[in-house]
Amino acid sequence: MTLEAIRYRTGSLQILNQLLLPHQTVYDDIRSVQDAYEAIKSMKVRGAPAIAIVGCLSLAVELRAGAGGDDPVTFIRESLCHLTSARPTAVNMGRAARELMEFAENESMEKNSEQLRESVIAWIEDMLERDVNDNRKIGNYGAQHILSGVPRDSVTILTHCNTGSLATAGYGTALGVVRSLHTLGRLKRVYCTETRPYNQGSRLTAYEAVAEGIPATLITDSMAALTMREMHITAVVVGADRVVANGDTANKVGTYQLAIAAKHHGIPFYVAAPSTSCDLSLESGRDIIIEVRPPEELTSINGVPIAAPGIEVWNPAFDVTPHQLITGGIITELGVFLPSELQAALTGRLTAL
Amino acid sequence: MTLEAIRYRTGSLQILNQLLLPHQTVYDDIRSVQDAYEAIKSMKVRGAPAIAIVGCLSLAVELRAGAGGDDPVTFIRESLCHLTSARPTAVNMGRAARELMEFAENESMEKNSEQLRESVIAWIEDMLERDVNDNRKIGNYGAQHILSGVPRDSVTILTHCNTGSLATAGYGTALGVVRSLHTLGRLKRVYCTETRPYNQGSRLTAYEAVAEGIPATLITDSMAALTMREMHITAVVVGADRVVANGDTANKVGTYQLAIAAKHHGIPFYVAAPSTSCDLSLESGRDIIIEVRPPEELTSINGVPIAAPGIEVWNPAFDVTPHQLITGGIITELGVFLPSELQAALTGRLTAL
Repeated sequence: MTLEAIRYRTGSLQILNQLLLPHQTVYDDIRSVQDAYEAIKSMKVRGAPAIAIVGCLSLAVELRAGAGGDDPVTFIRESLCHLTSARPTAVNMGRAARELMEFAENESMEKNSEQLRESVIAWIEDMLERDVNDNRKIGNYGAQHILSGVPRDSVTILTHCNTGSLATAGYGTALGVVRSLHTLGRLKRVYCTETRPYNQGSRLTAYEAVAEGIPATLITDSMAALTMREMHITAVVVGADRVVANGDTANKVGTYQLAIAAKHHGIPFYVAAPSTSCDLSLESGRDIIIEVRPPEELTSINGVPIAAPGIEVWNPAFDVTPHQLITGGIITELGVFLPSELQAALTGRLTAL
Repeated sequence: MTLEAIRYRTGSLQILNQLLLPHQTVYDDIRSVQDAYEAIKSMKVRGAPAIAIVGCLSLAVELRAGAGGDDPVTFIRESLCHLTSARPTAVNMGRAARELMEFAENESMEKNSEQLRESVIAWIEDMLERDVNDNRKIGNYGAQHILSGVPRDSVTILTHCNTGSLATAGYGTALGVVRSLHTLGRLKRVYCTETRPYNQGSRLTAYEAVAEGIPATLITDSMAALTMREMHITAVVVGADRVVANGDTANKVGTYQLAIAAKHHGIPFYVAAPSTSCDLSLESGRDIIIEVRPPEELTSINGVPIAAPGIEVWNPAFDVTPHQLITGGIITELGVFLPSELQAALTGRLTAL
């Protein structure tokens, strides 16, 4: 079964505290918007989709208890502002806040406070369900596409960072594809990079794999090319922070290097991302600004120094993989597309709805 | 000035204890062969050339104090056997032991014990001097070759692992090239990868750079391709554990991936190694067996676990870079050669001498 990182039933929310992973498995109660704000800020929960879901669900929990009284719209607005400010760069929370606010304001025209609370709760629960379903679709489309090239064999996948239940509403994107292959009985093994400097691979992806019995092997980031040459990798599948109009993809640093190595070995390279992570307002990846993070992420682990004192550090958090290197395709909940098809596929959908 | 990792004057030897780096700079006295054996075994000293030098110098220290009495040949033989057994895979110690033993046996034909001790000490001191001189030649040849492509500009180098004073008799191979460029006033900056899982880059190369004021920036192994694209890298220069007849090169894991990324960006890729690291008895890199090391090197740092318990690990210690990717050349103390020229260059030298 899938690791449960977010436990929600109407009126109650718990999250798996990622600060204690992989050494302790502890669920924390989230009873209020303020609890969620603090969990997001302190990175008990991380991954842009997961942040948005936990934020919105905490609002649903408070609304279920009657929060907002006679003026739920004001309460909802202030809560969403507060939640969005916890990690301002996590784009999904901002997007969800805008959509939810628009919905709440429309509903408030014709509903009383109690009815409004009910419909906002329903909207949020729907969002959770839709996200998980979209991830399952991504998993299935990705698995089928990869398997179409190898009709009978089991496959070996290489992935990067953490894109599983711990980063999304559930199931995962790139790791969702791995989950689907495993469920189909067609996964021979997944190789996961440790993903320096924050070690999402060794801490989180490895944790998910062990928890679910997915055959997995941890390697350092520097071993990926050797693994491609020696271990018969069928495909490389990674997630995305943002996919722009021409298919260029911003993702965790190291993705670009993996794509180059995959190309060198003739191994298909896939990006798995919901359409909500696609940003057609940017033409190409050159327009994406690279976030540079603190040196301490490289020079210490859990506060213990591991590098020579005084050394300068460059710590970009992600890189941009040009669309030419995304040779397998971009896996979305709508299907698998070549980078050159993405814009048409997404805008076709938007006009069709 | 160059960091002194090995301090030797006739009759006295000290080594920089690498187990305490980068946090403490402590020199340990090596008063006997047994001291050296323990220092090598416990990795207070590492790097195949450094191991051989420290082992032989410890023998010189004991011989200076009169060790071996009336039968120095037996003492020398037993000492060299013992030293070679400390890290049997470090090829340079074994080679030095064979050469030194042959020399000692020849000398013993016509010299008394005291004279024999003197000539063996001289041979060992000569070996130290020759190694450092060879490294300086490698540094100069490499620097000139790199600069020949950029007549006026300063250069930016990317390197991997530790190949400096801490791994050799002094000065270094790939890091020796960086030192030479810095001495010439032509080094803009060197980017060093942290070199997971054993962190030779962040612990040792960074330490050397800080100690000598070489402008250096630490990156994770996964950032190398992005650094090549964003930071105008002039050349990638790495060391070698072994270069075989066709130029294929075994070196610290991650080297192969760097070579692929360098090729993708059109950046010349150099291997710097003394001719003693070239092994013409092997035709191609396919004949080199990849050493796999314990999982704990990936899953813990200083004994503290950093990965999910129960995850499987693959931990190859090095990889083989095919000669086609060594686009800059192989930098030796005899000059810089294309992989296709190496065999002729080395055998030409052997017959010429």
